[in-house]
Amino acid sequence: MGMIGFTVGFIGFLLHNVIDAIEEPILEKALELAKEGKIGIVWCWRVGMGVILASLSSIIIVYFRPSAGGSGIPELIAFLNGTSIRHIYNVRTLLAKFASCAFAVSAGLFAGPEGPMIHIGALVGAGLSQFKSDSMGINLAYFQRFRNPEDRRNFISAGAAAGVSSAFGAPVGGLLFSMEEVSSFWSNRLTWQVFFCSMIAAFTTNIFNSAFLGFHYQLEILNNIIIFIPTICLGILGGGLGSLFVFMNLKIVRLRDWVETFSISSRLKKLMKIAEVVIIITLTATISTTLPLARKCQHQKVPIKTGVSANGKWRYTNQTYNELSSLLYTSQDHAINQLLSRGTHKQYSPEGLLYYFIPYFLLACWTSTASLSVGLVMPMLTIGALYGRMIGELLVIWFGEHFYYGEKYSDASDYKAWMDPGAIALIGAASFFAGVSRLTISLTVIMIEITNDVTMLLPIMTAIMVAKIVGDQLTHPIYHALLEVKCIPILDEEPVVYTQDPNGRSVL
Amino acid sequence: MGMIGFTVGFIGFLLHNVIDAIEEPILEKALELAKEGKIGIVWCWRVGMGVILASLSSIIIVYFRPSAGGSGIPELIAFLNGTSIRHIYNVRTLLAKFASCAFAVSAGLFAGPEGPMIHIGALVGAGLSQFKSDSMGINLAYFQRFRNPEDRRNFISAGAAAGVSSAFGAPVGGLLFSMEEVSSFWSNRLTWQVFFCSMIAAFTTNIFNSAFLGFHYQLEILNNIIIFIPTICLGILGGGLGSLFVFMNLKIVRLRDWVETFSISSRLKKLMKIAEVVIIITLTATISTTLPLARKCQHQKVPIKTGVSANGKWRYTNQTYNELSSLLYTSQDHAINQLLSRGTHKQYSPEGLLYYFIPYFLLACWTSTASLSVGLVMPMLTIGALYGRMIGELLVIWFGEHFYYGEKYSDASDYKAWMDPGAIALIGAASFFAGVSRLTISLTVIMIEITNDVTMLLPIMTAIMVAKIVGDQLTHPIYHALLEVKCIPILDEEPVVYTQDPNGRSVL
Repeated sequence: MGMIGFTVGFIGFLLHNVIDAIEEPILEKALELAKEGKIGIVWCWRVGMGVILASLSSIIIVYFRPSAGGSGIPELIAFLNGTSIRHIYNVRTLLAKFASCAFAVSAGLFAGPEGPMIHIGALVGAGLSQFKSDSMGINLAYFQRFRNPEDRRNFISAGAAAGVSSAFGAPVGGLLFSMEEVSSFWSNRLTWQVFFCSMIAAFTTNIFNSAFLGFHYQLEILNNIIIFIPTICLGILGGGLGSLFVFMNLKIVRLRDWVETFSISSRLKKLMKIAEVVIIITLTATISTTLPLARKCQHQKVPIKTGVSANGKWRYTNQTYNELSSLLYTSQDHAINQLLSRGTHKQYSPEGLLYYFIPYFLLACWTSTASLSVGLVMPMLTIGALYGRMIGELLVIWFGEHFYYGEKYSDASDYKAWMDPGAIALIGAASFFAGVSRLTISLTVIMIEITNDVTMLLPIMTAIMVAKIVGDQLTHPIYHALLEVKCIPILDEEPVVYTQDPNGRSVL
Repeated sequence: MGMIGFTVGFIGFLLHNVIDAIEEPILEKALELAKEGKIGIVWCWRVGMGVILASLSSIIIVYFRPSAGGSGIPELIAFLNGTSIRHIYNVRTLLAKFASCAFAVSAGLFAGPEGPMIHIGALVGAGLSQFKSDSMGINLAYFQRFRNPEDRRNFISAGAAAGVSSAFGAPVGGLLFSMEEVSSFWSNRLTWQVFFCSMIAAFTTNIFNSAFLGFHYQLEILNNIIIFIPTICLGILGGGLGSLFVFMNLKIVRLRDWVETFSISSRLKKLMKIAEVVIIITLTATISTTLPLARKCQHQKVPIKTGVSANGKWRYTNQTYNELSSLLYTSQDHAINQLLSRGTHKQYSPEGLLYYFIPYFLLACWTSTASLSVGLVMPMLTIGALYGRMIGELLVIWFGEHFYYGEKYSDASDYKAWMDPGAIALIGAASFFAGVSRLTISLTVIMIEITNDVTMLLPIMTAIMVAKIVGDQLTHPIYHALLEVKCIPILDEEPVVYTQDPNGRSVL
């Protein structure tokens, strides 16, 4: 899948640049002539060049490979629906498609390269997964396992998604396009494989496009390439801590069940449940009240933004504020907003956040199992944002000090803005959420919609992906684990195969 | 579906405000005391209030309705998987859940209201669709048709999506959450029903939240309530024009097939195809070159932004520029960028855009059927952006003139910024794309990812929805129509029922 994503991303980059390289000189020449007022010559020039390029494009299709004509999307839909069509997955089709599309678009026709890009993606998916080409005479034994209709279809779906992802820079859109329009068959397992594939494709196209400009994104400064190192660390951490959270959650539920076996009357049981809640709230309130005392009030040095996020609203006096009271003497929405706020990298210290993180983690875990009607989402976001911010602050201390030292504060155009602890807190929140719930695509979109910020899309996707992979090695997702504890049966989409003898030889 | 969305959105708003109303006075009191340095009293106050609220919350669950405990998501997953659980869809559960959740969160526990909100959404979906409640003794005959397990499941999925949508303000995320995590069964038809439902939920919550602040969104100025009037018009237009596009596309393909029956040799046929392409490119180049001559060069009055979108880059001289040459003497990416650019409302005139729109529409339609490997996406976006911009400019002329007159230009904090033609062009592009391709969710996400702007989410969703509904009345989606023309069979997910006798009485 990663290979498909990379290849499609690279082809997308190539196609885009070939078109640009042909189109730009033509248009510039035309403009020069137009400035001199020679409209007749402009007309000759544009028509002439257009006819040459468009004819080339058309000749390729008509004589060389008629099946490469059109956008290719209808054929793709039909194939995935079960109709076999000749020549649509073929190296020669790929070449014809690429060349014809590049010539046609750069001729100035009113048409775009996106449709063919989707077909090319599917083609790459089909070809790379089989690693067998009649035209090229290649046939690798290792890929034998993928040579069945189902896997082939899945790889083609992934390739189509990667095509959209590369053409529009829209990885989530690519996945959804493949799911909604192209594919007739879809499984949940496929979702995150395609998710991964289209993420890689968007990433590759981005990297190559920006390779000529100092190896960092031109528009999206935050998405610096280096951010992916802490992102992957956060993903691993998110997966690990998320699994720990699920594990502890289950242990607490089981412990309570075990304690309940000792008490006899059902009335006592109910009272015990309420007593448990009272203990939790007492602990919570105690911590909320007293924890800020453990930290000295700091003199306010950092320029604190005011506004919606209500940063630094709860200072004790005008000159000093306490980092923890700003988190604990307010509602959770505000606390999360403050953790995620950008450009306030000196507001919290790593140790202070650690003091808050440990009791919060334990109590949130306990609270969610008590007899209350409460959800896990807010605590999950807070925990993730806490350790994300912690790591972000550490990064600033370790690597960013020479940059932030003195009066030089980070701003949007700053090259080091990637280590803004607010951005890293956001990635942390996404990773912990993913580690606990194992959602992929919906979580990505929710995080984007919460923060109203599309620029962090790729790091968030990466962190979620890593957290899911790590977490899946360790425990069930939380909701499924809770179902198990409650003794509610659930059927997976695909049956688990228990047989020792998959070929059924013993039957024969 | 709309009713479910509205109800869930309203409950979400209510829950949020109840929590705020209880929590804020407590925290403010605590802060006041803390400022006076009386930490002991603060502790007593917070613990006391917390214990009261949390006990209330717990008592409701333990004595009144134990099945409302926890977040409710595992039960939801299990129900949609086929396991029946007692009391989870019940008015009393709804009330218990609401009250317990409100008390628990405002007590300051480390827990959030999102999980219960999802369960409440599903509950509303289940209840409203059946319109039958044993607890309340209501039973309406009209809703008999929905009283089967499949529809019930679908309504519950929609309700859960609306819950997420309302809790996070994330309509797309809600739909995906419902699809990925909650539901075990899913059909494509359900996608856009749930899409609609969660859109309404997010919209309702937004409206109510902002009702106290002058009836327009606080943060997202562009999403003014009035923008939905042109949005719906654009949606209808998009559906209509999209269907026209599909219709003409098919006619051209059929016409070509008919012409080809006259020519005998296959060599001639191939030459004819190439000749057709040459004719198209000649026409295209001619129009591209000469159309700008039809418009006078205007004196540059509007402050034109420079930068990525390369606005006004192709002026003839420094003082004047030609509105159409700025679209036609550049690549299509740039042209679309210019059409979608904000705050440049005087750059194009409606008539100028109309001159461009008509030939573009016809030629794009023809080009896409020729023997070329080209896609439809770019032209679709351009056409949509063209008529969107046209309407946007008209709106400015009709209603906005007294505002923009003289030197007073719109800026981001302007109340009338909703009629920025760039924003309306974006909605137009989405609506035409939807009218042609009938995509819903993936198109929304692609548009968001292309523009990197989440604030326009709700108008875009509305336009896509309307365009899809209008278009579905008129023609097939383009890809399916093309499949039909190419005589490729495709199987729908659900079989079409042709029988006149659905009850099978004749068989008996």
